Amino acid sequence: MRISELSATTDVPIGTIKYYLREGLLPAGRRSSRTTADYDDGHAERLRLIRALVQTGGLGIAAVRRVLAVIDDPDPQRLDVLSTAQDALTGGGGEGAEARPVDPVHAWVAARGWPTGPGDPVLEQLGNAWAACEAAGIHVDEAMMGDYADAVEQVARVDVAAVPQGAGDAVRRVVIGTIMMEPVLSALRLLAQRHVSVRQAGKPDDD
Amino acid sequence: MRISELSATTDVPIGTIKYYLREGLLPAGRRSSRTTADYDDGHAERLRLIRALVQTGGLGIAAVRRVLAVIDDPDPQRLDVLSTAQDALTGGGGEGAEARPVDPVHAWVAARGWPTGPGDPVLEQLGNAWAACEAAGIHVDEAMMGDYADAVEQVARVDVAAVPQGAGDAVRRVVIGTIMMEPVLSALRLLAQRHVSVRQAGKPDDD
Repeated sequence: MRISELSATTDVPIGTIKYYLREGLLPAGRRSSRTTADYDDGHAERLRLIRALVQTGGLGIAAVRRVLAVIDDPDPQRLDVLSTAQDALTGGGGEGAEARPVDPVHAWVAARGWPTGPGDPVLEQLGNAWAACEAAGIHVDEAMMGDYADAVEQVARVDVAAVPQGAGDAVRRVVIGTIMMEPVLSALRLLAQRHVSVRQAGKPDDD
Repeated sequence: MRISELSATTDVPIGTIKYYLREGLLPAGRRSSRTTADYDDGHAERLRLIRALVQTGGLGIAAVRRVLAVIDDPDPQRLDVLSTAQDALTGGGGEGAEARPVDPVHAWVAARGWPTGPGDPVLEQLGNAWAACEAAGIHVDEAMMGDYADAVEQVARVDVAAVPQGAGDAVRRVVIGTIMMEPVLSALRLLAQRHVSVRQAGKPDDD
């Protein structure tokens, strides 16, 4: 199909498609004349994925490139799907908050028995986000963080159970699933807050 | 303090401070001469909050304005802190994915016994995010969504338990806490995925 059809099919403006082509996120079409190129369903699928990562996942172009690189070419030497996926998700390092000493957070994570190590980018992300809460006047002590961690462990159990067998597709599923489920979890959280507070208020409920 | 000091104290560039002043997010300083104005600690605190909402929370200017309006002036007629907070958090409606029929999602939420109603913006957000997963090739069936919802209900219990008494501060805590905890929960999720998958792989762990 021509670029105009690709745009119509995917609902992505032509200018945006050209930008993704220039940035190398979308592979070039098959040249069909001096001025036109031909695109196939693979291009449409890739385009929809990029849009989902950018719009729903809130990723920047650099993060999208990293995610696509991991999905396109999972390192066959690395059998650990999850750490491959996590590298793609955290490669940019913490943004938005100043760097902070990771030591107390490291100690807290280690005390939980969660695996971590020096230079762990996820730990840095947690440290920055935790510090940003404090900076915004939201005090979260270690006990409360522990309660959150217990709850999130349940979420992670559902995540891990959904990982399919077979390395290539597993990486794809973990990376995209982790990103795309974030807004779903955010909406569930708001709905669940409402449910919990209605129940606490002692109104009759269905259980 | 002068605007240059305010900038130095908060690590926010002067141009950005002027932008927030023009947009009305930050109240004007007390005019101290024809060309200078004086800012106090309240300005610095407000500025840090705006930066946290924008950078860590990923909010746009319109959403920040909505959140600040609710925090500054919680409607005294509305005793329901949570729904006030949720209105501020969802006022923009779903962005990034096309509008989708809310009916199946409504049925699913109603079947769980979670409170909802027609035109519920949180439900729309859930519907859009769920549809975006499917569009990105991540199939999430109702059973799996139920497992996620069970886990997130745990998170919401911790959220609700942290709501302080007293309407004004409660709104502030719920709105800012909900936004600022999102990146914390995301990082915990990655750490917990690792923990769960290590345990599943049968490696020895500390419990």
